[in-house]
Amino acid sequence: MTSAPKQTVTPFLVEAESESGVDYGILMRDFGTQPITDELVARFEKVTGHRAHPLLRRGLYFSHRDLEKVLDCHEKGVPIYLYTGRGPSSDTMHVGHMIPFIFTCYLQKVFNCPLVIQLTDDEKFFWKALELKQARMLARENAKDIIAFGFDITKTFIFQDTEYIKEMYLNICEIQKRVTFSSVKSIFGFTDSTSCGRIAFPAIQAAPSFSSSFVKLLGDKQRYCLIPCAIDQDPYFRMTRDVAPRMNELKPALIHCKFVSGLQGASSKMSSSIPNSAIFLDDTPKKIKAKINGSKSGGGETRELHRQHGATIENDVAYEYLTFFMEDDDELKRIHDEYKAGRLESGEVKKILIDILTPIVQNIQQNRSVVTDEMVDAFMAIRKLDAS
Amino acid sequence: MTSAPKQTVTPFLVEAESESGVDYGILMRDFGTQPITDELVARFEKVTGHRAHPLLRRGLYFSHRDLEKVLDCHEKGVPIYLYTGRGPSSDTMHVGHMIPFIFTCYLQKVFNCPLVIQLTDDEKFFWKALELKQARMLARENAKDIIAFGFDITKTFIFQDTEYIKEMYLNICEIQKRVTFSSVKSIFGFTDSTSCGRIAFPAIQAAPSFSSSFVKLLGDKQRYCLIPCAIDQDPYFRMTRDVAPRMNELKPALIHCKFVSGLQGASSKMSSSIPNSAIFLDDTPKKIKAKINGSKSGGGETRELHRQHGATIENDVAYEYLTFFMEDDDELKRIHDEYKAGRLESGEVKKILIDILTPIVQNIQQNRSVVTDEMVDAFMAIRKLDAS
Repeated sequence: MTSAPKQTVTPFLVEAESESGVDYGILMRDFGTQPITDELVARFEKVTGHRAHPLLRRGLYFSHRDLEKVLDCHEKGVPIYLYTGRGPSSDTMHVGHMIPFIFTCYLQKVFNCPLVIQLTDDEKFFWKALELKQARMLARENAKDIIAFGFDITKTFIFQDTEYIKEMYLNICEIQKRVTFSSVKSIFGFTDSTSCGRIAFPAIQAAPSFSSSFVKLLGDKQRYCLIPCAIDQDPYFRMTRDVAPRMNELKPALIHCKFVSGLQGASSKMSSSIPNSAIFLDDTPKKIKAKINGSKSGGGETRELHRQHGATIENDVAYEYLTFFMEDDDELKRIHDEYKAGRLESGEVKKILIDILTPIVQNIQQNRSVVTDEMVDAFMAIRKLDAS
Repeated sequence: MTSAPKQTVTPFLVEAESESGVDYGILMRDFGTQPITDELVARFEKVTGHRAHPLLRRGLYFSHRDLEKVLDCHEKGVPIYLYTGRGPSSDTMHVGHMIPFIFTCYLQKVFNCPLVIQLTDDEKFFWKALELKQARMLARENAKDIIAFGFDITKTFIFQDTEYIKEMYLNICEIQKRVTFSSVKSIFGFTDSTSCGRIAFPAIQAAPSFSSSFVKLLGDKQRYCLIPCAIDQDPYFRMTRDVAPRMNELKPALIHCKFVSGLQGASSKMSSSIPNSAIFLDDTPKKIKAKINGSKSGGGETRELHRQHGATIENDVAYEYLTFFMEDDDELKRIHDEYKAGRLESGEVKKILIDILTPIVQNIQQNRSVVTDEMVDAFMAIRKLDAS
């Protein structure tokens, strides 16, 4: 009997021993989340009246907590809001960071609801060798990237913790009073040498899950929160959901996506801290091409072997990226089958990805180039949001 | 060989086994603070051109850190500021709370400098069975008591953490990043079941020690801070002084006072949590009289014994309070000698105290009765302070 390959998934580390990456089934069991079933996707389409996003129908958003409750609200016309975020650790986001924003943008349209986006400059300061000033600057730079995805300013509030802290502070206190060091120790793996900043932080990521942290933006009526995020962020919200009832707050609902693998392969996720693992939103077409061509391939070692055995698709980074970025389901299926059968070569799959991803990145670059500091200020202004 | 009586002094607990209360010599040694010597008091008088306050010349302010440096600044005309605070755990302050404010009021006049007063509503929420709303309300009520001491509004800023948090947050992060759980564990006796709120809090009490937490009030030039406080607050500032150089900030100076004993005697300090231990600022003259008459006496058990052996003055609460509140040094000396010799009786000492303390409390009550919410708002307004 062989033991299952080891995997570590926390907000601070994602590592899988297996070449095909994290086993998401085991993760759901460990975290106690629910799978997104075909039935749930069908209900999503029925209730929202929109076709499920490719990321959803392809199972890249694969797990959830209480998504049914959000659909119940929407069905009854009860207003909800969306909450997502980003830790600003580099001045340019990478392609992996795009996924939650692309999907959140879609959800905002589908639910026609307000959205709050947290930039955790304090978190990055606590965890990285960054000056606070730098983290604060990166938050504003990242806000520009985010704005470039096309969020509706009348319904979207972007905030950085060091600026918005006061508005959330009562909720932060309420959470911090109810969470002991033991809890954060077991949830996040903290130790005695963990800084007080890191210990204080989980409450700061939790607070935006409660609409009472946004009274000036959402009004003072309690509303249900849906959080689209990568599965590694779930521990924060497990903690949040645990304290919510004791605060007379609603437990936030979640919809979790898989990780985008690093260019080196599925055993680690794309990360700004490992520049060679990532395609950045400001990479040139030439650089994108070179990076994709150098990415971990699932193709056979020689042309002969490839034709004989086909590709090991689950270890192929370029194919994985296609599942995230190719719109056409039929074409994706064709590539899958042909590649797996060895009739399509690794270089060809990479070329298809280059042709799809390059214009997507260029489009974001173009959008971003017209985002001004004034627009950042406008998105960050505390004001009543629309679509309430 | 007998072991020294046990004593515990933390910001959360003051307990002494000895009937005469805390041994301050041992405490200074344990905390690593310096005694206030006659020479230092003489230099204080010379540099400031003011007679030392009775609380200072009687050794009730008995210990310090870097007080010389503050005098150096004053001598050279380098501006400093004062920082003190209060944890709002009851709606009325007691007589023990008066001491730091009386002394701080004096220091503000002597140094002619700005003063910031922190009301730690978050702290009280983390430590007591209080709603946050209640703690916030108590902070405003306590601000009224504090204003009644006669602080100069042009030079005084009163703030409550839950309102002022954003202005201090960058410094709070800088501190929290540099202090581990191990540190606060050893300084404050925290354990694994300590809440994250309590763990986050020391940085919040530390932050006002740096003038950069008050740029809008004090300007952006770094200035030296002097903190008058009871000695039990020293651990917060030991921690602060430890991180200050790593933040390129100045270590705050401190001047420490002894505890005001509870009415039951010197083994515990006056505390709002034990109503019978305290004379409150809203007690009636009748109540004050009854409380003082019921206070722990150092007089002989019978008139005969008293005449023979005299009073055990160090165990006499009424005499202790006289050292805090009687202005006349000669009269205090006379009472001391007569009482010790058994020629003055416990009841007479109590009567003298009643006659002195009642009008002091009534005066504060009268001042407080005219303090409006608008005045509280004015003291709490973020604005440039005078006397810079």
